[in-house]
Amino acid sequence: MNEPAALALAEPDFVLVRPQMGENVGAAARAMLNFGLSRMVLVAPRDGWPNDRAVATASGAARVLDNARLVASTVEAVGPATHVYATTARGRELVKPVMTPEAAMADARARIRAGERVAVLFGPERTGLETDDIVLANTLVTVPVNPGFASLNLAQCVLLTGYEWLRSGDAPLREIAWTDAPATAAERRHLLDRLEERLDRARFFWPEERRGSMIANLRTMFSRMALTATDIRTLHAVFRALADRHPARRDRDSQ
Amino acid sequence: MNEPAALALAEPDFVLVRPQMGENVGAAARAMLNFGLSRMVLVAPRDGWPNDRAVATASGAARVLDNARLVASTVEAVGPATHVYATTARGRELVKPVMTPEAAMADARARIRAGERVAVLFGPERTGLETDDIVLANTLVTVPVNPGFASLNLAQCVLLTGYEWLRSGDAPLREIAWTDAPATAAERRHLLDRLEERLDRARFFWPEERRGSMIANLRTMFSRMALTATDIRTLHAVFRALADRHPARRDRDSQ
Repeated sequence: MNEPAALALAEPDFVLVRPQMGENVGAAARAMLNFGLSRMVLVAPRDGWPNDRAVATASGAARVLDNARLVASTVEAVGPATHVYATTARGRELVKPVMTPEAAMADARARIRAGERVAVLFGPERTGLETDDIVLANTLVTVPVNPGFASLNLAQCVLLTGYEWLRSGDAPLREIAWTDAPATAAERRHLLDRLEERLDRARFFWPEERRGSMIANLRTMFSRMALTATDIRTLHAVFRALADRHPARRDRDSQ
Repeated sequence: MNEPAALALAEPDFVLVRPQMGENVGAAARAMLNFGLSRMVLVAPRDGWPNDRAVATASGAARVLDNARLVASTVEAVGPATHVYATTARGRELVKPVMTPEAAMADARARIRAGERVAVLFGPERTGLETDDIVLANTLVTVPVNPGFASLNLAQCVLLTGYEWLRSGDAPLREIAWTDAPATAAERRHLLDRLEERLDRARFFWPEERRGSMIANLRTMFSRMALTATDIRTLHAVFRALADRHPARRDRDSQ
């Protein structure tokens, strides 16, 4: 968060989640810079960082790599963002809005103009984003492709999304007006972490084998809400108040 | 022209002009099939054809390569087309309409629905299309990119154009109505070849060093006209009639 505010507002973060081959990271950097994008975030690249092959492939776009933010987890990557998009061909089992790249980038541009900070997640080459990454997103982005042959690679997905980002600058602006500062992913995450702790103590997640899907549904539900920072504070207070009505149970279960 | 008419009408020809590396031809095949395109035309691939590296890279899209039409020249490639698009970052010195990929593919779809046959030219990796190729086109296509870093490769250019082709299927249709069959590039070419012969005999192309640019301007001017097959026949007759008013000069000059 030491970046100048103007830069932080100007464009989305493109987050490469656990990319495998350095060449693909370099190709993604080129694809981004072709469309004027330079804010890359790298989540745990498989072959370490910095990576010589990435630099060799990036060629004239090496400065995108030089300025890339390296983080250990997707949670950390999206922390500062108020709105997170996940590019995925799957994930339809989660109840989240699905947009085309065109609609998503028009939406992202409107949010950034309204003062939001936006991140777009791109999954690893073979497998794509995992459910644990996708639950962090507010909106899914799916490229329309031939259903009989859909083989977009990482850099191609970055290319098409970047292309739509540049194009969205010409599109009519969809106004998004916030009456209060939007919540960041980190603030939402913290709220849900505390909520889940409280629900755990209340034995809400039962039976144990349904725990994972119950938590995913809960996080998905909250990801769809356009929460402000004030909403987050209010919900913290609400959850705390509810939980404190059963001090005996809390004390018993937290031992 | 032994193809079924329905296939000929369904989608544009994607013409790779003098592609260099087999890998890029294979990647272009994948990019095409991602968006449901399968009509590839190859103009004089540098490393010959068939090409093992192209097949290896194409992987699941090898059938696009198997069905590719191999020709010796761009003139031959665009012969059956009634409308030719050339993807190029340059060519602005030629007075031809320039479209974005989105507008060009919407235009192509409208033409195809109206019974036209359409071709899109993609240049070699390093140099892009040459002026001799570009003059064959009716319309130029330029991808909007960051002017400070424009490094789209062949397969990426094919990818973005294919993406816009697929997207154009959802866009509102721009109707194009022909009252007569549109002329093919071969018919237009033949008309201009004959015209240039006649003009040569009339010593029109003078001084000699301006010959090339005068012919390019002439071809460009005709490329902008929406000529029908009947128009072509009419123009042949017009040019013949004009030239035959000077039989003495023609006889003298053609010796």
